[in-house]
Amino acid sequence: VADGPGLLPSVPALDAGAMDAARRRWASRAEPPGALGRLEGLAVHLAGVTGMCPPPIIQRPAIVVFAADHGVVADGASAWPSEVTGAMVATMAAGEAAISALARVVGARVTVVDVGVGAPTAHLGGVLQRRVRPGTASIARGPAMSEREARQALTVGSDVALEQVTAGADCLVGGEMGIGNTTPAAALISAVTGADPVAVVGPGAGLPPERLAAKRELVERAVARLDRPTDPLRLLAEVGGLEIAALAGFYVRAAAGHTPFVVDGVIALAALCVADLLANGTAARAVAGHRSAEPGASVALAHLGLEPLLDLDMRLGEGTGACLAVPLLRAACQALTDMAELPSPSANPPKSGT
Amino acid sequence: VADGPGLLPSVPALDAGAMDAARRRWASRAEPPGALGRLEGLAVHLAGVTGMCPPPIIQRPAIVVFAADHGVVADGASAWPSEVTGAMVATMAAGEAAISALARVVGARVTVVDVGVGAPTAHLGGVLQRRVRPGTASIARGPAMSEREARQALTVGSDVALEQVTAGADCLVGGEMGIGNTTPAAALISAVTGADPVAVVGPGAGLPPERLAAKRELVERAVARLDRPTDPLRLLAEVGGLEIAALAGFYVRAAAGHTPFVVDGVIALAALCVADLLANGTAARAVAGHRSAEPGASVALAHLGLEPLLDLDMRLGEGTGACLAVPLLRAACQALTDMAELPSPSANPPKSGT
Repeated sequence: VADGPGLLPSVPALDAGAMDAARRRWASRAEPPGALGRLEGLAVHLAGVTGMCPPPIIQRPAIVVFAADHGVVADGASAWPSEVTGAMVATMAAGEAAISALARVVGARVTVVDVGVGAPTAHLGGVLQRRVRPGTASIARGPAMSEREARQALTVGSDVALEQVTAGADCLVGGEMGIGNTTPAAALISAVTGADPVAVVGPGAGLPPERLAAKRELVERAVARLDRPTDPLRLLAEVGGLEIAALAGFYVRAAAGHTPFVVDGVIALAALCVADLLANGTAARAVAGHRSAEPGASVALAHLGLEPLLDLDMRLGEGTGACLAVPLLRAACQALTDMAELPSPSANPPKSGT
Repeated sequence: VADGPGLLPSVPALDAGAMDAARRRWASRAEPPGALGRLEGLAVHLAGVTGMCPPPIIQRPAIVVFAADHGVVADGASAWPSEVTGAMVATMAAGEAAISALARVVGARVTVVDVGVGAPTAHLGGVLQRRVRPGTASIARGPAMSEREARQALTVGSDVALEQVTAGADCLVGGEMGIGNTTPAAALISAVTGADPVAVVGPGAGLPPERLAAKRELVERAVARLDRPTDPLRLLAEVGGLEIAALAGFYVRAAAGHTPFVVDGVIALAALCVADLLANGTAARAVAGHRSAEPGASVALAHLGLEPLLDLDMRLGEGTGACLAVPLLRAACQALTDMAELPSPSANPPKSGT
């Protein structure tokens, strides 16, 4: 991540020529104009991302789950203890998490990256060891980490994205596991969008309603320390998380490398908000996989100008919602590739009134 | 289709025991309760349909596209001439239609059935020849077909469903191709639900706005001939279509045989409205694949009590929206099958206040 003016590579604009070619190609396919709805816009978008028309059909999607712990859990941010992060990393390593199952359905590989779990994970088969520090400090009491650590975590994400593409991945899906991480996600979304913490704080993984006000206060205390506008690296260090920083680097690298990528729920969207500040144009290359039930997700989607493909009332994280959108990306490209031209000139719809 | 009290087999109630078992299994999986959102209800539903918990993961989905023509096209019901039906059947036979492409993405086979196309299709490889008559008469001027023909078309659909299951299909997706068929679909939905034709008539495959009022009038004239409540066979004969009758038979047979089936857009939903009158409980076993942009679809979904999985502004038919939902059915079953139990007792969320 040495190229580009700052920390990360710069992101090129979408390829307008490939997008125009995709629009023209749709207009001559054997269907009523626009009848495939959002699949058509999706294929146009992927043409812009890859610079190819039709965009290549995704063959090797890679799901990367970044895992880390959060000091703010000690302040009551979550219904679950931090130990669950390590337990869920072990569940993923065993192929028995939700994301393991969904990845099988879409034919994706799952890679788990320890970027900051509190418990040891080195004994677990296949968990990439990229730990920057064993969890953050509580964002309710001071900076989550140093700027140097935030930069390291960004680099972990960027490096892993590059490694996955080098290994053959043609679509990147970012996921996360980190008990307590809806709290820094809410803080980041509030800080970037200016939304009130009330609008972005939700129950996460099941915080009882009577504890929501306290969670909001944690977010308010964190955000209150920030100057606005805040440098994105400072944002990550002050109120972020290690897996969130890694996801931000992952997205910037995918965007810079013309690789399609699918964004998941509220944590992933918080990371994309920061990624877009780090490298302008990153969000314009994203595909929003789903609308998470966590309220901050909708705030971030609106801020980023993204309309998600799925809305299934999911709020699990791990990359599950983004993973489920992968067949839709494939379908968009496959249809634009395979569909015949209009069967014959006589099949053109008559002009109105004739 | 000789069994059952009437025309078609009767449909058993969903298996409440398997559904309870699925709910209990979800409650002990390694995720916050309810975090997989609608996937959880979908797996419970599929447990009820198949009588198994976890429900088997779909391996061999079969898409069947029923094709037929409509006399009402001569009265201005569509922007396209009836010849396009045959041309699109040829496009499907060549594997170059939208449904051909999407079926590849989900690993499904497509079978095209000529139940009433006006043009010859016997020379096209692989198109099942089950033609009842070469298109209907115009529903704006009199009955579309005789009750005997409607019964024959129902039997075609029921037989094809049985043939597909016998050949190994474990999930049935119905599609259709028939220029003009949003007009009989609107008439059926209006007749079954009582909705005003204004609420159910849309542009279909691109009717110009200035011709919509005339299309509504065609529907009104057709529906005005019906007594209410009308016998479902009479409904099909009077204002239906051959592919719509076949789809109704297809759904009843799938439901009676405990086979999961996914319903597509407005034509498919019109067929399901009739199927549910023919065999009570058919709609309760359906999975609604998507919300078509055609207005009658939402009216039918509300009447049937179905909430679709996808909402992608599609309105192509052919089974495309239902096909795209198949990976979600797989994901629901795969997650319920593969996910670990909660990692340890200490991972249970604390009671509130502790």
